[in-house]
Amino acid sequence: MAKATKKDDRRLIRIFDTTLRDGEQSPGNSMNIEEKLRVAKQLQKLNVDVIEAGFPIASEGDFEAVKRIAQTIKGPEIAGLCRSSDKDIDRAWEALKHAGEKGRIHTFIATSDIHMKYKLKMEPGKVLEAAVKAVKRASSYTPNVEFSCEDAVRTRIDFLAEVVEAVIDAGATTVNIPDTVGYTIPFEYFNIIKHLKDNVRNIDKAVISVHCHNDLGLSVANSIAAIQAGAGQVECTINGIGERAGNCSLEEFVMILKTRADILPFRCNVATEQITPASRLLSTITGIAVQPNKAVVGANAFAHESGIHQHGVLMEKSTYEIMTPDSVGLKANLLVLGKHSGRHAFKKRLVELGHDLSDEDLNKAFDKFKALADLKKEVFDEDLEALIAEEVLRPAEKYKLDHITVTCGSFAVATATVQLEIDGLPVRTAELGDGPVDATLKAIKKLTKTKGKLLQYNVGSITGGTDAQGEVTVRVADGDKTVMGRGSSTDIIEASAKAYINALNRLHYQKGKFIEGL
Amino acid sequence: MAKATKKDDRRLIRIFDTTLRDGEQSPGNSMNIEEKLRVAKQLQKLNVDVIEAGFPIASEGDFEAVKRIAQTIKGPEIAGLCRSSDKDIDRAWEALKHAGEKGRIHTFIATSDIHMKYKLKMEPGKVLEAAVKAVKRASSYTPNVEFSCEDAVRTRIDFLAEVVEAVIDAGATTVNIPDTVGYTIPFEYFNIIKHLKDNVRNIDKAVISVHCHNDLGLSVANSIAAIQAGAGQVECTINGIGERAGNCSLEEFVMILKTRADILPFRCNVATEQITPASRLLSTITGIAVQPNKAVVGANAFAHESGIHQHGVLMEKSTYEIMTPDSVGLKANLLVLGKHSGRHAFKKRLVELGHDLSDEDLNKAFDKFKALADLKKEVFDEDLEALIAEEVLRPAEKYKLDHITVTCGSFAVATATVQLEIDGLPVRTAELGDGPVDATLKAIKKLTKTKGKLLQYNVGSITGGTDAQGEVTVRVADGDKTVMGRGSSTDIIEASAKAYINALNRLHYQKGKFIEGL
Repeated sequence: MAKATKKDDRRLIRIFDTTLRDGEQSPGNSMNIEEKLRVAKQLQKLNVDVIEAGFPIASEGDFEAVKRIAQTIKGPEIAGLCRSSDKDIDRAWEALKHAGEKGRIHTFIATSDIHMKYKLKMEPGKVLEAAVKAVKRASSYTPNVEFSCEDAVRTRIDFLAEVVEAVIDAGATTVNIPDTVGYTIPFEYFNIIKHLKDNVRNIDKAVISVHCHNDLGLSVANSIAAIQAGAGQVECTINGIGERAGNCSLEEFVMILKTRADILPFRCNVATEQITPASRLLSTITGIAVQPNKAVVGANAFAHESGIHQHGVLMEKSTYEIMTPDSVGLKANLLVLGKHSGRHAFKKRLVELGHDLSDEDLNKAFDKFKALADLKKEVFDEDLEALIAEEVLRPAEKYKLDHITVTCGSFAVATATVQLEIDGLPVRTAELGDGPVDATLKAIKKLTKTKGKLLQYNVGSITGGTDAQGEVTVRVADGDKTVMGRGSSTDIIEASAKAYINALNRLHYQKGKFIEGL
Repeated sequence: MAKATKKDDRRLIRIFDTTLRDGEQSPGNSMNIEEKLRVAKQLQKLNVDVIEAGFPIASEGDFEAVKRIAQTIKGPEIAGLCRSSDKDIDRAWEALKHAGEKGRIHTFIATSDIHMKYKLKMEPGKVLEAAVKAVKRASSYTPNVEFSCEDAVRTRIDFLAEVVEAVIDAGATTVNIPDTVGYTIPFEYFNIIKHLKDNVRNIDKAVISVHCHNDLGLSVANSIAAIQAGAGQVECTINGIGERAGNCSLEEFVMILKTRADILPFRCNVATEQITPASRLLSTITGIAVQPNKAVVGANAFAHESGIHQHGVLMEKSTYEIMTPDSVGLKANLLVLGKHSGRHAFKKRLVELGHDLSDEDLNKAFDKFKALADLKKEVFDEDLEALIAEEVLRPAEKYKLDHITVTCGSFAVATATVQLEIDGLPVRTAELGDGPVDATLKAIKKLTKTKGKLLQYNVGSITGGTDAQGEVTVRVADGDKTVMGRGSSTDIIEASAKAYINALNRLHYQKGKFIEGL
């Protein structure tokens, strides 16, 4: 359907991915440094223009992640978020400077009456002053400065224009006009962007960016309306994750540009065939699956490809298919490895999947692979992804599962015997429960002396078939911290124990992080 | 935020819910008659204007469901889908006539070149003829006739206008302009509807309806654009379910009208506080959860309500909240019942939840409730919903679980002993497996001599806490039929066995149904 005859006529829209910042700070999506780095490498393959890697002052972990990504990723610019204070900006640059010219400081302050009055408790004049001061300080480190007017959509339009003009004068090269609370609708947002384009004296000296939340289900449509009005950068996330109802979904926005190139005169640099791998990688890492009817990346999005004949014989694919599965990198599960596969084949496949492991990690992963191949006839890419996520991307952990034995059934009282290592020392106990998972988690709680509350428990099969691995994800809260834990095994009770222990390790790691954002 | 000063100035938009037709025919969302009736009752509470109850000629089950809904539901109109053939239309009316004046025949034929050429293999003139003939036949039964131009968005605009004019002359009182393949974008769709409004002579004699698919993530935005251009009915589904990436999500569309009443001069009849109960009921029945970042109904949509303080102390809710949780009927889990609750309290709560059971069903449900309350300290509304879904809404079944015993663990070979009743006769066996679920399903397969392939396996906890019930959903394929099965228990191995057996019963029930649609 895409018929762009002259490529050069189309205006380039920059794709600014904030999966690792706005996405990562939403409940259940927290990642450790290795996991963030893995996502960043996939974003590099996707060829996004900017990766927002984190909020450096939020925690030591966020700082380290931004720094590591700035050091490692080649190609995309690396942005870090900071409030409009010297301390925040200095700390952000400390992490971002490792990206050199590709480092981008992204600073913000709220400009709507409601945010200025209730959150900041500052007069508009003071807010304007703080914005200009922040941009100037950021500009002293790098010419690549983005400024965001938090809650721009609910900001008085004259004040918004005034702030935008002032921060461009102060050195901002990108100005972001976010719909922080997901409130706007396309024609209204079009008018806001158009107003800035028409009324801000120096607007052509900066790129207008948009950052839309999805509270009313309109984030993608609003982003499209904004570029039609003159915006040149769209902030988005893989699978549309992010605060509350999430952000503009990268895959939907990009596929609209590609599919409707016949009437939309825009282009972007994204390698669309990396979309499905990116979506799956993120789900593997966070344990949060997209719903089956999610556009572009849901299990049913290309249902005609899954062997289901819903309309009898399809004479012509295009009767119901506006994009091809290939164009978003969707391929059938490939049987790649089995119990007779050697180390060479294993390593080769991992490299194809984007995992370039150290020798030590490769040895560890290969041992786990052989154990898995003994249990499971066919080892799919998804199994390898889960194995890497679990065995390689995890930092040194406080709690570790040694082994578990369970008896349960309609007439039996469920009983679990669990042995853990805590800081390297073995401990064990047995507990009864209402079911095998209850018994298992009770035993772990007793051994670890922790009080994490189980908010949510999910199991998904990594691939089809009754011998598939179960991947368990749990959401555990302790005080005001909530984390996700993940574990996989062909035995779902064992997977449950691993997931819960993983969550306890994450609670341990998460301590002391605060979260704030657009 | 909603400030509609004069209610009468706003144009009424009719809400046509197709959860039970377009939604139900999408993979994994099939429901039996009792389940459909349960959803229909909730749609009645939501106060939608039209319920599309099914596709009567598709199967005996679909016919019976439409008939039962037509007989039972009071308030909304009841629509049934049919192709443009006498046989389809006659069959549809046979089911719909039980709704009397509230019965609506919804007939369709494709009008795009690509569909006419490859799918219908008919010339445009013949298609026009068939459309007019179908509408006339439908009109002979009822004045309430809706006609859809399948793939309207990719139809030549002049031909589309010609068909619309002709079917209105023939008696259609609603004309639907669907975006069957989810291809359009807001300004394009606005122009199509506007063109019909401006160029079809008799357009004011019918209501223009829109039916948008979400393949590019724009179904809600397109529906908004369409009503701005003059459409008066929007077709949508709970949770946005439907073919491929689904349909316009009812909750998003309705909450946009409510939240942005300041700039959108429209109103609808939906009781928004029934939205969350409707979303949860559907997820309970199909076993398909919405993703956490789903707008309006996702677990994170009102994350500030879940005890997570993401922005420190919130001084003023409206800084980040544009809708209140109350407005969509979101309430914290209420502890309603425990082991000491009596039959009276149990019945009362069920009635409040919308379940008016017969004495026999009530007795059955109460026994199960007592058994559950013995295992679980606190019985929540969600537990009751699961119990009703499992124990009451199911038809007589071929396969039934008697009991199960399992041993597994890090060192043990997983072993399952399973006893079933097949057509009332007990049979039992034991099997080994790679994990407890594998062993259990192998034993069931052996006993039932079935070949269903497990495509997907998921477990969710119905409420929080380690003693929560696990709800297992499985997706099982046999030949070209795919079904979802569901089972719940505090023991997830038992829940897995129940879910798989439920799926085998559904495969048995599903035989002989075909699916086609807009």
